[in-house]
Amino acid sequence: MFEQLGLIGCGLMGGSFALAMKRAGLVKRVIGYSKSPTTTQRALRMGVIDVEAPSALLAVSGSDLVLLSVPVAATESIFRSIIHIIGPKSTIMDVGSTKQDVVKAARSVLKDKMGQFVPCHPIAGKELSGVEHADANLYKAKKIILTPTERTQTEHLEKAKQLWAALGSDVHTMSAAAHDAAYAAVSHLPHMLGFALMNSILAQDDSKEYLALAGSGFRDFSRIAASEPKMWTDIMLANKDELIAQSKAFRRSLQAMEVLIQQGQHDALLELVTKASKARVGWKMNDKK
Amino acid sequence: MFEQLGLIGCGLMGGSFALAMKRAGLVKRVIGYSKSPTTTQRALRMGVIDVEAPSALLAVSGSDLVLLSVPVAATESIFRSIIHIIGPKSTIMDVGSTKQDVVKAARSVLKDKMGQFVPCHPIAGKELSGVEHADANLYKAKKIILTPTERTQTEHLEKAKQLWAALGSDVHTMSAAAHDAAYAAVSHLPHMLGFALMNSILAQDDSKEYLALAGSGFRDFSRIAASEPKMWTDIMLANKDELIAQSKAFRRSLQAMEVLIQQGQHDALLELVTKASKARVGWKMNDKK
Repeated sequence: MFEQLGLIGCGLMGGSFALAMKRAGLVKRVIGYSKSPTTTQRALRMGVIDVEAPSALLAVSGSDLVLLSVPVAATESIFRSIIHIIGPKSTIMDVGSTKQDVVKAARSVLKDKMGQFVPCHPIAGKELSGVEHADANLYKAKKIILTPTERTQTEHLEKAKQLWAALGSDVHTMSAAAHDAAYAAVSHLPHMLGFALMNSILAQDDSKEYLALAGSGFRDFSRIAASEPKMWTDIMLANKDELIAQSKAFRRSLQAMEVLIQQGQHDALLELVTKASKARVGWKMNDKK
Repeated sequence: MFEQLGLIGCGLMGGSFALAMKRAGLVKRVIGYSKSPTTTQRALRMGVIDVEAPSALLAVSGSDLVLLSVPVAATESIFRSIIHIIGPKSTIMDVGSTKQDVVKAARSVLKDKMGQFVPCHPIAGKELSGVEHADANLYKAKKIILTPTERTQTEHLEKAKQLWAALGSDVHTMSAAAHDAAYAAVSHLPHMLGFALMNSILAQDDSKEYLALAGSGFRDFSRIAASEPKMWTDIMLANKDELIAQSKAFRRSLQAMEVLIQQGQHDALLELVTKASKARVGWKMNDKK
């Protein structure tokens, strides 16, 4: 399907994409660039990329598919550094966890090449980062959200849809605004709560003893608190408004429980807990089988 | 080791204990009582209990080991209903998730039989409740916290330690106060946060769409929100003071992140997230292998 994939960022997400594309026979050659030469060299040794590019610009040169797999805050500067070399037929995608900021960066830089850009967010990942954990199956049966703008050309949107579907992903399309609101609630806020819980415990004198006593409930609840700090700092800042709205709504919900507990209002508390528990029992991850 | 186990409450925790004791050959006969006759009948059919008792009192009659496996709020009334039949040599245990309230209930009722009571909290469970999920392996390799009081007799404490160890549990001893403080932080608060998150999302117009988009991070984070509502309402009320202190500390920790996000303070936010992430990466569940 594609002659050359230009991979900008050869970490877990980018590396997994390259491996999956190669295994599916969807790309002939992968040329990769990473800020860290160690990463690029490892990606080369692992067969994730075929050629090492000394700059983002050179990774884009001659590539009919370009994937940005970098922290969302780096999107605009990457676009600036590659804009002049993007071919008129190339499809550009990203894998950022926030979409309005990425679209804004694209608008301000890509100009007449904006139609070639398809913003993407795969709902996939691991707590482990780095190309050493790249996995050709990372996107299989996982949701991928595309947030095309009114300027995205049908040709590029269709190519993106087809390639993700060919990797086994479950392709969804929505606006960047709807995406950011939804993921603030079901992903960015839970991460923020996980970080805040760890810090709240760590600030206490007996934190060591407390953590040594924790069981499997804590283990699963706090798993996302082990996520990559730079990436998540970027995501939280990029989706600031939606995230703060969610965090405030959450604090109100928590405080309402506190009041009922303080006042010993058994029945009202039971009602709240039952509502939450029922909803979670009835929920299941809407993944492709 | 024991002639007869009197089981008061034949749900997941009690039923699993009976199955484990039988399999280990630690008890000859189990007589069980549950508030719900359906539960007792099911326990009988499943071989969890050998004899159905029509009352808590009759389950205790002739039992040299008694296990209370009821919501913590029911502890005091159960003690009142069985106090007169407790034999002078019987060992009494509970499996409640909070310990100061249970000890208080025991003190106010058991009087001169207080020395026979060993308060226990197994750090084990499932989101699924009910005897139909009882599992002889539930306590294997799991921590069990014993919180003896100054009146607990060594003989009964040693019996309790030995039997839990024989079931494969990892036995710890601490004060009821230390127990309640620790589990407020690493168990009760995470459950409360899980319930509050579900309710915060459910209160929003687009909650259905949001929940349909959630991935594996949300799945693991929110797992404990599916816990049994009555049991958790009781636990939260029973450990009120410690839990509210933890919830307030948590809200401060969350609000500190909100402020940094609002102000776009990248470096300070990164520092907080890094601290949390490092601590969680370095944590591992301290279970018996």
